Amino acid sequence: MKLLYAGKTKNVYELEDGNYLLKFKDDVTGEDGVFDPGANTVGLSIEGAGKAGLKLTQFFFEKLKEQNIPTHFVDADIEKQEMKVVPATVFGQGLEVICRFRAVGSFLRRYGKYAEEGQRLDAFVEVTLKDDERQDPPIGRDALHMLGILTKEEYSILKNLTKDISHVVKDELGKKEMELYDIKLEFGRNADNQIILIDEISGGNMRVYKDGEYVQPLDLERLLLG
Amino acid sequence: MKLLYAGKTKNVYELEDGNYLLKFKDDVTGEDGVFDPGANTVGLSIEGAGKAGLKLTQFFFEKLKEQNIPTHFVDADIEKQEMKVVPATVFGQGLEVICRFRAVGSFLRRYGKYAEEGQRLDAFVEVTLKDDERQDPPIGRDALHMLGILTKEEYSILKNLTKDISHVVKDELGKKEMELYDIKLEFGRNADNQIILIDEISGGNMRVYKDGEYVQPLDLERLLLG
Repeated sequence: MKLLYAGKTKNVYELEDGNYLLKFKDDVTGEDGVFDPGANTVGLSIEGAGKAGLKLTQFFFEKLKEQNIPTHFVDADIEKQEMKVVPATVFGQGLEVICRFRAVGSFLRRYGKYAEEGQRLDAFVEVTLKDDERQDPPIGRDALHMLGILTKEEYSILKNLTKDISHVVKDELGKKEMELYDIKLEFGRNADNQIILIDEISGGNMRVYKDGEYVQPLDLERLLLG
Repeated sequence: MKLLYAGKTKNVYELEDGNYLLKFKDDVTGEDGVFDPGANTVGLSIEGAGKAGLKLTQFFFEKLKEQNIPTHFVDADIEKQEMKVVPATVFGQGLEVICRFRAVGSFLRRYGKYAEEGQRLDAFVEVTLKDDERQDPPIGRDALHMLGILTKEEYSILKNLTKDISHVVKDELGKKEMELYDIKLEFGRNADNQIILIDEISGGNMRVYKDGEYVQPLDLERLLLG
């Protein structure tokens, strides 16, 4: 099988059957040896990180399948840290789609004049460009359309899918008395040009709190599935 | 008459007839003694700056009146550097609305991965919060609505008014072989809750080019009206 892309936390291979294989690494993003899901550099390697991320991803992608929400997931082999997916092309050079239930992080840094820390937000969706050099700038519907990244119709589908998916994740966490504050998703177009969820859903994609305390991304798998 | 607000480049007074009076100063924004319309501090004072700004503002507001575009303008006294306006309340703690015809400035700093410098943009409208501390962050329709700053209907009115006004300014500049690259406007609600253009329209609000050269804001009045 052919290596298509070596990512920060995953490698992507092309399989002979036309599908792709994602190989989850134990490398996690961070700076100065401290794990930070939002960082753009690989900071350290933690044994079991790849397996924990894949277990959560499999769990959530199977829940989404039950709800008929389209994703790239085919199947997973936890021991091998591998996930088989259908091929998809990203929008432009890649977008991140964020859904917010509480005002924290970059939302608060931007809109702190009008929002209090931790204030409830109603599944607020925003899109950022994947662009390390320009600190992943936020971008709206009109600019996405004008720059040829997404049509206005696709933006609307993306926004609704994001809300639906985020509510599924929020509900699952709620069953274990955990609360989802925000979550970051990635989407692409499959061979039929349908918009589908891609990448992974694990601790590194979201901020979760339990009893008012922040849940460390690497603890999430144990707390949810353990 | 009562001083309501002492601004960086204008003072605002309340008149006995219920209108407001804007007194244009010769102070201009900038840093380290260099004029910069985008700066948040007053950098220097230039004789004639207030008068030039008011002349342009009167010229454009009268053009807008001919087009039945609602503004706060009543009349102006150039010698006294005064403009009489109807009272208006701003949205939240103030917004700036930008209309872009060319990709320059902060647009390019954010979206340079997808746009080339100087590329034509189709009257692209974006909104920023007036918030010096947070570097005037951009904000979209959904966030403006969620944070109670503007309804979705008001956003739509604001966007259309911004395009109409910017085209009027662009056309006037075009008559003197100048090209409008981008312009920054402010809006408010009048006593009838109608959305109207407020503040001023002068060199400090826009980027203008002539024969491929940037036109200094303080040269604009002479080039357009002289």
